[in-house]
Amino acid sequence: MVKITLPDGSIKEFEKGATPIEVAKSISEGLARNVLSAKFNDTIVESTTPLHTDGNLTLYTWNDKEGKKAFWHSSSHVMAQAIQDLYPGAKLTIGPAIENGFYYDVDFGEQKISENDFKKIEDKMLEISRGKHDFNMRAVPKEEALGYYQREGNEFKVELIENLEDGTITFCDHDTFTDLCRGGHIPNTGVIKAVKLMSVAGAYWRGDEKNPQLTRVYGISFPKQKDLKEYLELLEEAKKRDHRKLGKELQLFTFSQKVGQGLPLWLPKGAALRERLENFLKAAQKKAGYEMVVTPHIGHKELYVTSGHYAKYGEDSFQPIKTPNEGEEFLLKPMNCPHHCEIYNASPWSYKDLPKRFAEFGTVYRYEQSGELHGLTRVRGFTQDDAHIFCTPDQLGDEFKKVIDLTLYVFDSLGFKDFTAQVSLRDPENKSKYIGSDDVWEKAENAIITAANEKNLNYVIEKGEAAFYGPKLDFMVKDALGRSWQLGTIQVDYNLPERFDLTYKGSDNETHRPVMIHRAPFGSMERFVAVLLENTGGNFPLWLMPEQVIILSLSEKYEKYAQKVLTLLENNEIRAVTDHRSETIGKKIREAEVNKLPYMIIVGEQEEKDGTVSVRKHGEGDVGTMPVEEFAALINNEIKATLKTFEV
Amino acid sequence: MVKITLPDGSIKEFEKGATPIEVAKSISEGLARNVLSAKFNDTIVESTTPLHTDGNLTLYTWNDKEGKKAFWHSSSHVMAQAIQDLYPGAKLTIGPAIENGFYYDVDFGEQKISENDFKKIEDKMLEISRGKHDFNMRAVPKEEALGYYQREGNEFKVELIENLEDGTITFCDHDTFTDLCRGGHIPNTGVIKAVKLMSVAGAYWRGDEKNPQLTRVYGISFPKQKDLKEYLELLEEAKKRDHRKLGKELQLFTFSQKVGQGLPLWLPKGAALRERLENFLKAAQKKAGYEMVVTPHIGHKELYVTSGHYAKYGEDSFQPIKTPNEGEEFLLKPMNCPHHCEIYNASPWSYKDLPKRFAEFGTVYRYEQSGELHGLTRVRGFTQDDAHIFCTPDQLGDEFKKVIDLTLYVFDSLGFKDFTAQVSLRDPENKSKYIGSDDVWEKAENAIITAANEKNLNYVIEKGEAAFYGPKLDFMVKDALGRSWQLGTIQVDYNLPERFDLTYKGSDNETHRPVMIHRAPFGSMERFVAVLLENTGGNFPLWLMPEQVIILSLSEKYEKYAQKVLTLLENNEIRAVTDHRSETIGKKIREAEVNKLPYMIIVGEQEEKDGTVSVRKHGEGDVGTMPVEEFAALINNEIKATLKTFEV
Repeated sequence: MVKITLPDGSIKEFEKGATPIEVAKSISEGLARNVLSAKFNDTIVESTTPLHTDGNLTLYTWNDKEGKKAFWHSSSHVMAQAIQDLYPGAKLTIGPAIENGFYYDVDFGEQKISENDFKKIEDKMLEISRGKHDFNMRAVPKEEALGYYQREGNEFKVELIENLEDGTITFCDHDTFTDLCRGGHIPNTGVIKAVKLMSVAGAYWRGDEKNPQLTRVYGISFPKQKDLKEYLELLEEAKKRDHRKLGKELQLFTFSQKVGQGLPLWLPKGAALRERLENFLKAAQKKAGYEMVVTPHIGHKELYVTSGHYAKYGEDSFQPIKTPNEGEEFLLKPMNCPHHCEIYNASPWSYKDLPKRFAEFGTVYRYEQSGELHGLTRVRGFTQDDAHIFCTPDQLGDEFKKVIDLTLYVFDSLGFKDFTAQVSLRDPENKSKYIGSDDVWEKAENAIITAANEKNLNYVIEKGEAAFYGPKLDFMVKDALGRSWQLGTIQVDYNLPERFDLTYKGSDNETHRPVMIHRAPFGSMERFVAVLLENTGGNFPLWLMPEQVIILSLSEKYEKYAQKVLTLLENNEIRAVTDHRSETIGKKIREAEVNKLPYMIIVGEQEEKDGTVSVRKHGEGDVGTMPVEEFAALINNEIKATLKTFEV
Repeated sequence: MVKITLPDGSIKEFEKGATPIEVAKSISEGLARNVLSAKFNDTIVESTTPLHTDGNLTLYTWNDKEGKKAFWHSSSHVMAQAIQDLYPGAKLTIGPAIENGFYYDVDFGEQKISENDFKKIEDKMLEISRGKHDFNMRAVPKEEALGYYQREGNEFKVELIENLEDGTITFCDHDTFTDLCRGGHIPNTGVIKAVKLMSVAGAYWRGDEKNPQLTRVYGISFPKQKDLKEYLELLEEAKKRDHRKLGKELQLFTFSQKVGQGLPLWLPKGAALRERLENFLKAAQKKAGYEMVVTPHIGHKELYVTSGHYAKYGEDSFQPIKTPNEGEEFLLKPMNCPHHCEIYNASPWSYKDLPKRFAEFGTVYRYEQSGELHGLTRVRGFTQDDAHIFCTPDQLGDEFKKVIDLTLYVFDSLGFKDFTAQVSLRDPENKSKYIGSDDVWEKAENAIITAANEKNLNYVIEKGEAAFYGPKLDFMVKDALGRSWQLGTIQVDYNLPERFDLTYKGSDNETHRPVMIHRAPFGSMERFVAVLLENTGGNFPLWLMPEQVIILSLSEKYEKYAQKVLTLLENNEIRAVTDHRSETIGKKIREAEVNKLPYMIIVGEQEEKDGTVSVRKHGEGDVGTMPVEEFAALINNEIKATLKTFEV
């Protein structure tokens, strides 16, 4: 008998050689049907692997990352079999599971494959799946393994095997198909109910362009047809909402090869959007007692040696800026905190003055490999909605909670209703990675956890994910497509106050060390706008739209009246533009819809005569005709309803 | 006889050997009395130098820079004589005129000199002045000159003479005193009516710290006692208004050695002031059809090679920023224009879209030697209130005039009533210094002059002062102390559009080149705030004050009412703060006066009961007691009266 410990701590006894599926059966038949893979004592095993010793067992289903991985890995075997059946002579190389699905790199020789062939392969795969063939692992001596692929004439697999350490090599069989494989499969092909080949691309053998070019075939599979349908719809929607595509269509930002990759240029509409977001946060911050400061984008290298950033980022980021003489060295600032510490140090403080909350929309620069860059989400220069709070240790808990309140207000005003939080603590196994003493870390970590509890946040704790200078609380928002994005961050820092020798005079008239909180509810303007675009598809909350209303004149004759309407709206703090072009009203409306203008108002003879406007709402159509003043009130009421004032 | 041509073009004949004073006498006795120095055929001469050939003569009085220079140069001779009389054995070295006054570097040997000795020296100088001694130049052979100073035991003058080219060496005699001198004196010591020694400082012989240290004695002198009095008052006032001093007192900005010299850190009150200025300009710019953009603070080195800035600034400014791999090189941007050109290039344009006006408060970085840095007026990083207008050649004149209107609106709103303009054109003798063809330069220069004439500007034309990429119009404002400051600039540029290959589609459907205008009404936020501080002494226009009102509670009992008043004022868009400290009301008022708070309101028992406030105005005192609402209206009316809306 073997003793199997389950994740809930319960221990069950089974006969030696029992499989994970059998363990699942002992819990419920339903679970057994859904088990795809398992982990036994920290090693991934098949659901059919016999267990011969006592140990811990975790069972994985489709709802687990590991379950999906086994599902897609197994599906790549099925695709390989289908390809080999349909394209005799095609040589298989490697075929792993990836984040969404799987691929296989294949040498098709003289044969070509395109999207037109996908249906044929998919059908073959489904035929194999329906056969409910078991996946069976077996150990093979190296010589035998080499012999198998030499006979097949597959020099790629031969090379792979040659490079493997001597010892046991494993093959996986299902149906008539055999593949070199380390394991991690679903029980049998029968659970694969839906498959879809996504694309083909060129790929060099082992990623080296000196090697032969292979064809990479991407696919995805699901346990239900419905899951595939939903996935494809999501993909279609995500493509429409890609912030790079929307950013271009809505003329929000652009990139220039001449200026440099990863350095966004904000076009007028994007800059206006960004300014509106900044003003929104500024207003809330003012209420919350923050003070704006402005600091330069460079600092002496020594400043970052003092802060510890140079040791952390120096080598891997933008290199020092030398001066033509005087031998000075400056760095582009990777963070705003050292500058804010120097602002704190510019004046003496008493405990009565604290907390001081210095805020800045501070642009920082960090080098990223060009291959890592992506739209506005991975850039080389970005503007943090940064602030640093300097407070007494007694004030820390309260200040932390206030920052949580502000962050939640930001999410709520921008339509992010669904979010989770992550408390990132130190890796207790690797303390040398972090600056600061044990004592100091414990205090900071406890302050965060206490605040998260008091604010009833839905949070997880991740050890080893802290910043090098302190623990932090990060917010992950879920967008309209269910995707998670990391946004705001709040970090406690006991270390910079030491490094910059920050002090205040306590009520005891002695000198004390303040605590610092770093925080950025948006994270960065770039990332936040990207996430906002992907979440809303460009249909921002009305208060945020760079242009809220477009006035379409039916013909040039009504230009003067349109201008009068424009002035009235502008006097009511409404952002409106006009379209006086001599195009048909139909074309003007279509273009305004594409540009996601929330409201279109049409003015012609009747409207001019009555002092009214005909109103259309984006995506909804005709709203009716009304006096201009009524329309202005309608807009402003809609704004008031969505944009609440931040209350401290 | 010699023919003398005067600056007005008139030609007069005089006997050979006539002096400038004699020429002046032929015009008027008054002029002759005031002539201090002269220029004959591009050479500065004494007013008593005999003229032996035909030539052009310019006469200088106290009102000319050259006149003052002769006056102060001569005064340094008088001071030297006084020092030699009073401190036998003191060795004279060099003693030039400077921007304000003159100095003499003296080796006092074992003797010491301090401010306590100034009176004695001044009295002696005035005694010499009253002697009305003529200054007489005479040529001396080198050997004789060396002999004179060897006998005097003055090794400094000996060294100076040894280093002079062989040929005629000149001495200047007056009274009993003789000095080695190149000339440029007033007729006699009698016109020096007022003298003041300003300070003493250490100075190394020939500026080399390996040489002996000398004592530099600074002085100034005037033709009237009244002039000296005014100068000293101005100096006193300027000291009070020094923006570095006020910036510290009003907690507007600071510098940190750790961040780096010349890189200002804007403290909360300064950042708020700056934001207010930015918002003021943004509002006017919006009315004038500008669109804001945001661009990064770095760009590929190649970007600036394209723009021509690298060739111009590259070597002498901050050096390129290298990346850890991929071999890229970036520069801190010295100007925003290349980025704005790339924004223009991001979209295709038709003539119907132009002009495009891209504005940005863009922070740029230019290296300056640390010795050149001065407060906010000479810095290494500064934020330009920059904009670039891209227009058709036909629109250039109109756009230029609109920019002049905007600039004058800015000056007017900020209390600069007195200004002049300078049209800077190319140096026709040195065309290779500039980018672009003759044709293009002429067009641009004419456009500026035409606009300046149409706007009735009071301007001068300066040849050789243009930027390397185009001619410009600069505004010089006169501050309350009569000092001139260069602020706003408007520049035409035909060159960058070529270099960046900017185009638009004309009404002829052909591709055309737009013209660019660079402009910055403030110049930079740093420089403008400095000038504003020096002009107003910190008493900004009410609309601009970071804090407009301070509420002083008579005791803690009235804190609640004070808070109520604060909320009411804030609801009326008035920026107010409170002072609830348990200090005497007298002390609170004094501190508010020092901090230049425009309005102080005092609340106590009576005020709380009546719902009123007792109002004091900065520098004026009690204004009376009134209901809070009335006070709010008073403030807002004062603001409306000074801050007009920009009308296009």
